[in-house]
Amino acid sequence: MTTSSFPNLKLKHNEERRLAAGHQWVFSNEVDTAVTPLNAFKAGDLCRVVSDRDKFMGFAYINPHALISARILSRDPNYEPGDATLFIHRLQVALALRERIYPQKNYRLVYGESDQLPGLVLDRFGEVIVGQISTAGMEAMKDHIVAAVKQVINPTAMLWKNDSGARELEGLEPYVETAFGTVPTTITIEESGVRFNVPVHDGQKTGWFFDQAINRQSLLKYVKGAKVLDVFSYLGAWGLTAAKAGASEVTCVDSSAKALELISQAAQINGLTVNTIKGDAFDVLTSLHQQDKKFDVVVIDPPAFIKRKKDIPKGEAAYKRLNQLAMQLVERDGLLVSCSCSYHLEPRVLVDAVQRAARHLNKFAQIIEVGGQSPDHPIHPAIAETHYLKAFTARVVGD
Amino acid sequence: MTTSSFPNLKLKHNEERRLAAGHQWVFSNEVDTAVTPLNAFKAGDLCRVVSDRDKFMGFAYINPHALISARILSRDPNYEPGDATLFIHRLQVALALRERIYPQKNYRLVYGESDQLPGLVLDRFGEVIVGQISTAGMEAMKDHIVAAVKQVINPTAMLWKNDSGARELEGLEPYVETAFGTVPTTITIEESGVRFNVPVHDGQKTGWFFDQAINRQSLLKYVKGAKVLDVFSYLGAWGLTAAKAGASEVTCVDSSAKALELISQAAQINGLTVNTIKGDAFDVLTSLHQQDKKFDVVVIDPPAFIKRKKDIPKGEAAYKRLNQLAMQLVERDGLLVSCSCSYHLEPRVLVDAVQRAARHLNKFAQIIEVGGQSPDHPIHPAIAETHYLKAFTARVVGD
Repeated sequence: MTTSSFPNLKLKHNEERRLAAGHQWVFSNEVDTAVTPLNAFKAGDLCRVVSDRDKFMGFAYINPHALISARILSRDPNYEPGDATLFIHRLQVALALRERIYPQKNYRLVYGESDQLPGLVLDRFGEVIVGQISTAGMEAMKDHIVAAVKQVINPTAMLWKNDSGARELEGLEPYVETAFGTVPTTITIEESGVRFNVPVHDGQKTGWFFDQAINRQSLLKYVKGAKVLDVFSYLGAWGLTAAKAGASEVTCVDSSAKALELISQAAQINGLTVNTIKGDAFDVLTSLHQQDKKFDVVVIDPPAFIKRKKDIPKGEAAYKRLNQLAMQLVERDGLLVSCSCSYHLEPRVLVDAVQRAARHLNKFAQIIEVGGQSPDHPIHPAIAETHYLKAFTARVVGD
Repeated sequence: MTTSSFPNLKLKHNEERRLAAGHQWVFSNEVDTAVTPLNAFKAGDLCRVVSDRDKFMGFAYINPHALISARILSRDPNYEPGDATLFIHRLQVALALRERIYPQKNYRLVYGESDQLPGLVLDRFGEVIVGQISTAGMEAMKDHIVAAVKQVINPTAMLWKNDSGARELEGLEPYVETAFGTVPTTITIEESGVRFNVPVHDGQKTGWFFDQAINRQSLLKYVKGAKVLDVFSYLGAWGLTAAKAGASEVTCVDSSAKALELISQAAQINGLTVNTIKGDAFDVLTSLHQQDKKFDVVVIDPPAFIKRKKDIPKGEAAYKRLNQLAMQLVERDGLLVSCSCSYHLEPRVLVDAVQRAARHLNKFAQIIEVGGQSPDHPIHPAIAETHYLKAFTARVVGD
């Protein structure tokens, strides 16, 4: 390796320890700004992170305006970033895992920090890639990412779905644009034998929640002959796969008329029957209870009620309320599948919400499945935030 | 309901709250011994637990000599214990869950507190039931349990494998005895298409670890063509199912010559090839490293290194050492499956052991599977101790 062309970002005494332990983030208060002032950098600049004793910790990109000042891209002096080479390598490593697991080309191909590409998400829908960038450093390397995607995956089209709320923290504008090729309005993918039309341009996130695929699959062994209620259904991934697996009756609840329309279309394409109810989930659950409805399986898979730490009290209350409303609808010996994608919700708080809801009705909830993220959403063992998804399946019996 | 024939066990002020929240245990310091002295009871006596305001909390059995003085059997005044009725009901509820999940009759049928039968484990091996009692209260009701098993399951034979260390805490002697019928020396069960001969009389615990079945199954998608090392293999459940699923080479390590002999027999019966190495796992791993051996998949599934809280420091050190030794043997882009059945080992401590082991070798470990207990080992949502099994699958790549 020749001498790096990148400037140093120097850490204060002992502040290299978290990086040495495997973490990838440098917080602003850890930088020795007397030696390497952050305001000498532009958002997206590359640097060499060094300890106070000038030990090389890794190459990183910088955002002087964000709480996380720098994120490590590579610890290997041979993988200096700045062109497409590092991305090509990382994509190959990421692809090797997914090809080992998935028979079809539908999966999260890159999951940010956990695939050593902080701030970048790439979802694969067959021959179309949908990307999401959440940091200024990745935004600055967009062209290299596209070049690497072309070389490693060679898809027919790629879309940037760069409209997540996280971008605001990095001073980035939201936008949706085609990187190359022609991205269709909807893309058809198959899960558990059911075809879904995924609206990649204007759906939720990248259009599909691959993270829950493993949990949806775990549920299938319980749904034969069951009446299933899929709450916050979005495109009906839980409900339609349950219908295909032999559920006797499926009802999907969502507030989006467009999502419900896509569910009805998908039901028809797949020769399945699904009821849909449009409305706020809390209202619909309350109303179903007033009508004395019961279901053998109730799935609650809400959007994140806790996006930031300060939302914890309000968010926890919402999860509690939701689990109470859902538990009322569970038939004797039925199942409640209670999910949360809020990193800030502790698993035991969600279990407690399920437990309290059961006790309130003099019932007992056994937790029979503890689900997390599908393996295309690996967990970075040093970055707790990458482990966010919880899916508890409780069987509700008499007490 | 007529007036109960059982004496009251009165709690101190506010000490009913944990029970009201769903827990099943009464600790000795929570009993109002001035009103209801514990030494007035014999181990195994039944009682009515009441709050200081005489609110009925449930029927329980008592052990005046144990730290846990009483365990709730039923909160329903209609399910008064004292004969086989309650057991029949509980077994029916437990059986309904297992029959919903398992096509074959091999599973844990009753998992103690989580199936509302504290202190009782029943494993089913087809037409044979193997039971484990860990409390004096359950020991006193052995005849009712057997009667209920006959009525609900009607197996050909039943064995009491009452030799667990937990019995000592309750002042119970260890023993193994046939409850009825003729229990064969080994019982053949099938998992993932592989037949195993399980030594129920003198194997580990009840003879088979059903709790890991779900995690063994999760691994199968990764093993095709892989060199697999199964450490603490016991009967080779990980290794042989991997061989059947297409692993190119399987090596099982165990300290028991008898276990390895059963592995070789099973390999032959199933037409599979497996290497065995007899020895202490730590020594064998060290030796394999000295020989520069590498494996695509290394599974470490040790016995509990932490049985009681006081063992935590020593136990954590052992898990760290074990994960370091195992990580050295993982091929580039290989997998380490790191398990622990120690309730007292926090999940994040095990993840940290994996992470440190990887960093030490300048490698990066992505956690791609977070496994827990199979659904025949439900978790009691109010009793943390019932959630003990951890199985993390880490993919090891360059850093």
